[in-house]
Amino acid sequence: MSQEDFQKLLKRVQQVNDLGGAAALLGWDQRTLMPAKGSQPRAERLATLAGLIHQIFTSDETGQLIENSESFINSVDRESFEASLWRIVKRNYDKQKRIPTELSEDLQRAANLGYDAWATSRAASDYSQFRDALKRNIDLNKQVVSIHREAMPDVDDDYDILLDDYEPGMKTSDISRVFDRLKEATMPLVQQVAESGVNGRDTLVHVHFPTATQDALVRKVVGQLGFTEDAWRLDTTAHPFASSMAISDIRITTKFEEDYFNPSFFGTMHEFGHGLYERQVAPSLGRTPLARGASMMWHESQSRMWENLVGRGRPFWTWAMPVVQEHFPEQFGGTSPDAMYQAVNAMGPSFIRIEADELTYNLHIIIRFELERDLFSGKVTVDDLPDAWNAKIREYLGVEVPNDAQGVLQDVHWGSGSFGYFPTYALGNVLSAMLWTRIRDENPNLESDFEKGEFGGLRTWLGENIHQYGSQYLPMDLLEKVLGVREIDAEPLVNYLTAKVNDLYG
Amino acid sequence: MSQEDFQKLLKRVQQVNDLGGAAALLGWDQRTLMPAKGSQPRAERLATLAGLIHQIFTSDETGQLIENSESFINSVDRESFEASLWRIVKRNYDKQKRIPTELSEDLQRAANLGYDAWATSRAASDYSQFRDALKRNIDLNKQVVSIHREAMPDVDDDYDILLDDYEPGMKTSDISRVFDRLKEATMPLVQQVAESGVNGRDTLVHVHFPTATQDALVRKVVGQLGFTEDAWRLDTTAHPFASSMAISDIRITTKFEEDYFNPSFFGTMHEFGHGLYERQVAPSLGRTPLARGASMMWHESQSRMWENLVGRGRPFWTWAMPVVQEHFPEQFGGTSPDAMYQAVNAMGPSFIRIEADELTYNLHIIIRFELERDLFSGKVTVDDLPDAWNAKIREYLGVEVPNDAQGVLQDVHWGSGSFGYFPTYALGNVLSAMLWTRIRDENPNLESDFEKGEFGGLRTWLGENIHQYGSQYLPMDLLEKVLGVREIDAEPLVNYLTAKVNDLYG
Repeated sequence: MSQEDFQKLLKRVQQVNDLGGAAALLGWDQRTLMPAKGSQPRAERLATLAGLIHQIFTSDETGQLIENSESFINSVDRESFEASLWRIVKRNYDKQKRIPTELSEDLQRAANLGYDAWATSRAASDYSQFRDALKRNIDLNKQVVSIHREAMPDVDDDYDILLDDYEPGMKTSDISRVFDRLKEATMPLVQQVAESGVNGRDTLVHVHFPTATQDALVRKVVGQLGFTEDAWRLDTTAHPFASSMAISDIRITTKFEEDYFNPSFFGTMHEFGHGLYERQVAPSLGRTPLARGASMMWHESQSRMWENLVGRGRPFWTWAMPVVQEHFPEQFGGTSPDAMYQAVNAMGPSFIRIEADELTYNLHIIIRFELERDLFSGKVTVDDLPDAWNAKIREYLGVEVPNDAQGVLQDVHWGSGSFGYFPTYALGNVLSAMLWTRIRDENPNLESDFEKGEFGGLRTWLGENIHQYGSQYLPMDLLEKVLGVREIDAEPLVNYLTAKVNDLYG
Repeated sequence: MSQEDFQKLLKRVQQVNDLGGAAALLGWDQRTLMPAKGSQPRAERLATLAGLIHQIFTSDETGQLIENSESFINSVDRESFEASLWRIVKRNYDKQKRIPTELSEDLQRAANLGYDAWATSRAASDYSQFRDALKRNIDLNKQVVSIHREAMPDVDDDYDILLDDYEPGMKTSDISRVFDRLKEATMPLVQQVAESGVNGRDTLVHVHFPTATQDALVRKVVGQLGFTEDAWRLDTTAHPFASSMAISDIRITTKFEEDYFNPSFFGTMHEFGHGLYERQVAPSLGRTPLARGASMMWHESQSRMWENLVGRGRPFWTWAMPVVQEHFPEQFGGTSPDAMYQAVNAMGPSFIRIEADELTYNLHIIIRFELERDLFSGKVTVDDLPDAWNAKIREYLGVEVPNDAQGVLQDVHWGSGSFGYFPTYALGNVLSAMLWTRIRDENPNLESDFEKGEFGGLRTWLGENIHQYGSQYLPMDLLEKVLGVREIDAEPLVNYLTAKVNDLYG
């Protein structure tokens, strides 16, 4: 009976997953192709789907099927498809079931209003238009935290609960340890770059690049990395993202800026990294919540690996330089691979996270992590936030924020009710460096392959060691499986950044 | 309390409509942009949505709400939004309630897999790759027919039941009457064209037309007709169709053939006609089943009107000829509007329905109508079908089908499980001619407006007299409202075709 109940549970989960897939397409279309006037009916359609997904997934019937199939699950291999699926379903069910429908709707509404308030206030660079919407989002998320807190008395830190949505099982104390080390090692390197007196290396990526040629170039590059027309699409959007309709139907997006080479070139490699993760999940996990990355940190480790460890590395440019020159003979006719390597690695403090170099990027994240904790502990109030932000930017990056649009209002996350998400970006960088050490050890020809434009070795290694498992393992279990450790370690990233700064600004 | 129940029913109907809208996007994407390997998971997703829509819509709760709101409906105006919606919901509920959810999911799955089998087999011109998928679709639809038949003992003909999905209330006997008259009047005209000895007028539309220029041209033309970027999209596909995501989000599609001018030019005008119908539905009908055309015949009357009565008419070419010349100066530099009018109206028997002239088109439909009836009565089996097809083409059109791709495999409908749909194309032609007589009477400047590229008068007339009502009226009720009659009459089309043949081949 118990096995039959599991089959019923699986069918229910597939149904919910199909609805989620439909919502994913509605969202993808909304952000890429939809005519402007489709916006209002699309929002209604997405709200209906979200409500229905929540209703079906958190129904008592789902709970009963989870309970009834437990004895079957206890009889099968812990690492089997069935056990992995059952665990993730039970985990999500228990979490979602705790939140009353009314609070869930309030959260959704506050996130929608918060997004609008954010967009308006950012355009006007006026924090006062954002303040109330932000406060509402924080207050509601505090309610969520206290509800979960009551059910999980052994949690060390309230912030762990916020993290859990994006990075299951991650502890705030682990992040603090890693980030402290990163901060300590990064700040002298930022100083070293500043004192080198080198600048202006990136002028060559700031000339004119016609959109159609950028489009042809990025298609050529991701085609070389592993993008195939039969299972991927590349479209344009205002804020690039990757999304999967199925393991065999991956949608990545990019944005072309005619006066800046980097955004589409590295942005597309970044989204390719996300897409490849979901493309290489084992087909047997399809139509279930296992058919996605293990966590946001794991996802970012993949996107940042292709963007930075591959795309901003010397070996890559040996292959890529002639390709780029073919597309942009006037802009890059006389550019050597080494000059290009220097240009795309130009470093220095800036206000905007998404435009930051590999070194200062993590400082931007650490600032957000610290402020999120202070906002939830009450150490910083919503009214104090802009000053607190500017003080941190001054302290960590040595620059003065000119206005709130380029400061506290630059990111969409808080307005949309996402707290605990930011740290996963820097953790992804840390993890990508940890993995890179192992990948290079096990693939001695990796860099000479890159010089020839061969990326199949890396792709296969990632597929076999990470991607195929989807989210069958919790993040730290996957780490142990892949690297044999259970702790995130900042040293490989510190070593990588130190070597890179010495190489470029030594 | 009855009014409250109606509000609950409305909310439920909106939810189902949102799910239907999600399915529409999944279907549109599948046929326009989806990578090939997305096909299998997409079929599953569509099947889940169809099942869920069926389950929610046909639930006892829906039935209860319909019943409980009846007294409220009896107290409001028969033509009100509430009464119209209630009627269509009750009609659909009673019909769908009879189909078990499992059969409904099987139908959806068979239709999606049938679409793929059709595309593959057509590309290979190999009927054997299509046969099983077709048989599956026919068998499932036979089940549907026998279920409805049992509940509707007063139906004259099994085929009425297939028709009812596309043309509510239409009788097979009415179609036979109209088609017999059409066949009787058309065959001598086909003979007259053949005996005129005129041919080769269309060589000028059979030279080389680069895709990119065709694309620019059709966008220019539909832009003039009323397509706007903020509420419409035009994409390419294998078998063009129109679809609406919302009243304010219309998707039309086309197909470019580099050696033939007509398919994209007239095909896009055709789909524009469909799109305009749904674009001009009153916004108050949004998110309900009233926000679509009254029936397929009504829909086709609109698409064929823009394609033929507008696009293949003399006045249109006075405006369009210079526009076409601007895009294709080499191909059409010395072509007069009159020569173009003759070229795009070249008549004669052919294999392909969608490329047929106005005269032989209806014969293609009559062939399909007869074969569908024979397939469902068992007079023709799936194995006999290609031979039966070829024999009918020989009998009605006097030509030999060279291969199945240009014969029985040319249309998507049967593979997608659509039986009873084809007749609505010819009925649409008949209706468009009925309407055209009235429209010309009420708009004396219509043709001189077309000569100037002004189509707003026609658009407005159609919006006010037909489109705004969506499917508030049953097809014959709408006919009575618009034209004051309750019977489909072949004479206006016969007169139009006779005059056209005399004009061109007199």
